[in-house]
Amino acid sequence: MINVAILGYGNIGSGVGEVIEKNSAEIKRVLGDTLHVKYILDIRDIPGVVNDINVIVNDPDVKVVCETMGGKEPAYTYTHLALERGISVCSSNKELVDAYGVELSAIAREHNCSYLFEASVGGGIPIIRPLRESCAHEKITLIAGILNGTCNYILTNMKAGKDFATALREAQEKGFAERNPAADVEGHDTARKIAILASLVSGKKYSYEQVACEGITNITPEDFAMAESRGMSIKLLGVYDAEKNSVNVAPYLVPQTSPLYGVNDVFNGIMVHGTQVDNLMFYGRGAGKLPTASAVVSDVIECAKNIGRNIPNCFADLEPAEVSEPPAKPAGEKFRVLA
Amino acid sequence: MINVAILGYGNIGSGVGEVIEKNSAEIKRVLGDTLHVKYILDIRDIPGVVNDINVIVNDPDVKVVCETMGGKEPAYTYTHLALERGISVCSSNKELVDAYGVELSAIAREHNCSYLFEASVGGGIPIIRPLRESCAHEKITLIAGILNGTCNYILTNMKAGKDFATALREAQEKGFAERNPAADVEGHDTARKIAILASLVSGKKYSYEQVACEGITNITPEDFAMAESRGMSIKLLGVYDAEKNSVNVAPYLVPQTSPLYGVNDVFNGIMVHGTQVDNLMFYGRGAGKLPTASAVVSDVIECAKNIGRNIPNCFADLEPAEVSEPPAKPAGEKFRVLA
Repeated sequence: MINVAILGYGNIGSGVGEVIEKNSAEIKRVLGDTLHVKYILDIRDIPGVVNDINVIVNDPDVKVVCETMGGKEPAYTYTHLALERGISVCSSNKELVDAYGVELSAIAREHNCSYLFEASVGGGIPIIRPLRESCAHEKITLIAGILNGTCNYILTNMKAGKDFATALREAQEKGFAERNPAADVEGHDTARKIAILASLVSGKKYSYEQVACEGITNITPEDFAMAESRGMSIKLLGVYDAEKNSVNVAPYLVPQTSPLYGVNDVFNGIMVHGTQVDNLMFYGRGAGKLPTASAVVSDVIECAKNIGRNIPNCFADLEPAEVSEPPAKPAGEKFRVLA
Repeated sequence: MINVAILGYGNIGSGVGEVIEKNSAEIKRVLGDTLHVKYILDIRDIPGVVNDINVIVNDPDVKVVCETMGGKEPAYTYTHLALERGISVCSSNKELVDAYGVELSAIAREHNCSYLFEASVGGGIPIIRPLRESCAHEKITLIAGILNGTCNYILTNMKAGKDFATALREAQEKGFAERNPAADVEGHDTARKIAILASLVSGKKYSYEQVACEGITNITPEDFAMAESRGMSIKLLGVYDAEKNSVNVAPYLVPQTSPLYGVNDVFNGIMVHGTQVDNLMFYGRGAGKLPTASAVVSDVIECAKNIGRNIPNCFADLEPAEVSEPPAKPAGEKFRVLA
């Protein structure tokens, strides 16, 4: 039995507990052992939940911690404490990975444990591990990703004829968008995710602050009419272009021949171009309780298979990147076209 | 320096050599070491190529063998010989994996080496490793895959208005179809691949012979007109249905809402449904020299990182599956609809 602690008992944290319980037979088969949630930590007073991180990091039985709190603090301090005791941490926290992923990965290596973050990009889609393992020998020249389900849901509904305000309101009513939707619709969430992916494949650390960022708030029904007349769709993309050394977020015209054209509603799709393998695309639910929790659990299993060993995650030795401006839009055009 | 041998210097085998050479810097970065092709074996007399497998398996310097010969013999005998000496084997040979994968995986485990076969399904698409690692804790209820690029190319052209004979002839002229296209157009290639994927996720070994198989030779332009009038496309799918315990290959009507709808030309797409993660799709080039070779190289790197250790591949302990008939077609219909 391998003991696990969950930090942050919100949507994703409770999902991790649910996946571990519901899929215990499958986990036993792949791990050769069972996972047991020994502690749940939350800052709120909930029965059965601990509030003090020291209870967890001082318990030598705890081998893996799931950090599903989000935000920088106290997630950073808690992750730091766990890794220093040799406890692996699996995170869904893109903000923390972007800001402190390099430092935390180095600490994990130093203490023979691991810092993994499959769930920080693309929700349930296996993307970090395939890039880290299956594609690590590829020269990745381009990543173009639909990385925010809220924006994609809004754009899918605008394509069907609604204006931005109506589509946003409906997304809020269905729980797909926050009451304050700025982080999504202004592209900041996508920026964090594309910065993580760019760092993973480039050997340099791109940070959120370096990403040129344009959201979807200025897109009109007329833009969709124009796009349709050209046989294209409008998608908010995070784009890493290795040749131009640029990372940006913006609405793009996506032609029907692109595998991203048909990625609709709350789904995410991440296109990756390697010089040998050509175009790949990874598709699935980029958010949501159980899909994201499933990605966290895949990391927990990898850590549980490697107790006492560091799983290299590519982040530990990254030097900060210098970034170039993204290519200008074509003269007179509101959007770039995805090549 | 880790020494590698390539068995079979055809399209994929020569591609493996090319990827190892062209991407040597990336390989060094991920592996912390270099790969060196010490031997190439072929049954033909080619300068610099060996004909005797014993030269390779008796050389203690050789740590990994790439089996890119295809067919059962001599691939089976050569793989057996290598694994018995503790040399890991990375295969692109779906026929061998289907027929002898269980036995060869058990031999690898016994001799502390590995038998990996990422390239046997989906060409360059990372699919075996994500199913084996990222999704191993999921209950996979359905796999539906466009697994044969030749058929998909023909069907894409039939959708554009050509009849089967014309589309096949053009595929042959472009080198996408063999002179004898039976293995592709009658669905046997797809059947081998879906049998491998079903075995990987079910814990039971499904074999090619158990797959109910219908090809694309009876599809007419009228069928495409009918499909279009219903907003659907016709795709040759390999389908594993865990709830019905069925594995079959047949042309299906695929609705526009499915991520497989937009998978066209020679591309492959594999949709996977897990109870927690919901729908995933993996997309890319399902054939071709360099994409397939890239998948072989990803296996070589994993083996090279794990010399002297067996990488569990899920196949070693599989018992033969008992298969149910696939669900009947709806009354009066020529095709099933992908749910």
